[in-house]
Amino acid sequence: MSATSDYLEVALAAADAAAEAVRPYFRMGLTADDKADDSPVTLADRAAEQAMRAVLAARCPGHGIIGEEFGETGPASETVGGGLRWVLDPIDGTRAFITGRTTFGTLIALIEHETPLIGIIDQPITRERWVGVTGRPTVFTGPLGGAAGCRPCARLGDAELSCTSPEIFDETTRPAFDRLRGAVRRASWGGDCYGFGLLALGQIDVIAEAGLKPWDWAALVPVIAGAGGSVTDWAGQPLRLGGSGDVLALGDGRLLPKAVSLLG
Amino acid sequence: MSATSDYLEVALAAADAAAEAVRPYFRMGLTADDKADDSPVTLADRAAEQAMRAVLAARCPGHGIIGEEFGETGPASETVGGGLRWVLDPIDGTRAFITGRTTFGTLIALIEHETPLIGIIDQPITRERWVGVTGRPTVFTGPLGGAAGCRPCARLGDAELSCTSPEIFDETTRPAFDRLRGAVRRASWGGDCYGFGLLALGQIDVIAEAGLKPWDWAALVPVIAGAGGSVTDWAGQPLRLGGSGDVLALGDGRLLPKAVSLLG
Repeated sequence: MSATSDYLEVALAAADAAAEAVRPYFRMGLTADDKADDSPVTLADRAAEQAMRAVLAARCPGHGIIGEEFGETGPASETVGGGLRWVLDPIDGTRAFITGRTTFGTLIALIEHETPLIGIIDQPITRERWVGVTGRPTVFTGPLGGAAGCRPCARLGDAELSCTSPEIFDETTRPAFDRLRGAVRRASWGGDCYGFGLLALGQIDVIAEAGLKPWDWAALVPVIAGAGGSVTDWAGQPLRLGGSGDVLALGDGRLLPKAVSLLG
Repeated sequence: MSATSDYLEVALAAADAAAEAVRPYFRMGLTADDKADDSPVTLADRAAEQAMRAVLAARCPGHGIIGEEFGETGPASETVGGGLRWVLDPIDGTRAFITGRTTFGTLIALIEHETPLIGIIDQPITRERWVGVTGRPTVFTGPLGGAAGCRPCARLGDAELSCTSPEIFDETTRPAFDRLRGAVRRASWGGDCYGFGLLALGQIDVIAEAGLKPWDWAALVPVIAGAGGSVTDWAGQPLRLGGSGDVLALGDGRLLPKAVSLLG
């Protein structure tokens, strides 16, 4: 537990470093036809992951790192470091960032083998931050209002559904998502990790996304669990590093059987 | 011009009043199954429109008002008041508001007959504000960064397209939108008026939406014109109060012929 508190301090320092790195690139005045490899989002992505890696290398040199930009480095699971690895997504929500929306975030998770212990969703522009630690209540801070805590929602027919984009689905996942969408009260679009943060604030009841990578979902698990909700795969099982990445987040566990049956 | 400056002060006072009215309802902790007529968005919508109407009644009693919540009141066009009417949307982006996203806004326009003279997009939570006056450069203020001015984009193949939701299209407009989407570099979702604001900041190049009401689009016209872009119908013609409400916004006029041909 003391170790977790120490690691939480490291995670917060990494989030601060990433935010410093990202801010100068937001709403930079570049033209639409810049090349992908020198676009503001690419530069910000790399700078933020490097900033986080520098913090982790200095303070947790024995831990492995899985990062969206620079891949897997350091000790692998099951070896040194007690199977502890950091999972980093410097900018989750590339399209939001590119278009100047603040519905993106930096994601930082500490996992033990495949289980997330710590998760941070950080929005560096609005300065909103969600901090989740297994077994503790999620803490949300920021100047725009809201408080951590999923809301009760007993029936899918009353539920607010969110999803980042209709384009994430393929021929297999689209019909399943459409069944879920047909059963809820209302759907809204856009959000990436920020949508999951809003679920942890009791603003959204259901999120279904397909094909997420571990750095897209690892940080969400402790944040949402600590707010009273759940993040699983579409079968309601714990997410795994090598899994499909089809993610179902619920604010109220009573929705799980019906949601799983529609997505199955 | 002096009259326009006076009216601009009125418009800004109305925006301030609406923002005060909206803020207490954002991310209010209500359950998912609240009735529509006492939902936070409904209460905020009504409170904000009433606050704007109170400012306008006190300072421009001779002007007509067209409001999303309380309809058309006061002198109609072509009669007293020189055909001047205020067009109000207290919360444009209901779903964003409901889900705790800040991608909604309050819209205030002053129109003369059918032509918008003044337009304001106000985001009361992030405190971002776009102010457009016909013939003047658009002014953007706020703490999150960015500057008014559309960016150059000569080819649709380089363009960033945005749209609020795939659900706004019907059998007629969907194939047209899909043709446009097929021609651009990338599409992103969510935004309502906030997306148009981002186009005026040079972050988005093309927005196409269908079935908007006058209170959804009137304020956008001076904001985007003053940033160097254009807002028209899908045929490239000026929007009209009784028109289809199919709206095309472009940051660079060179995109117009191709966009119109794809949407036609």
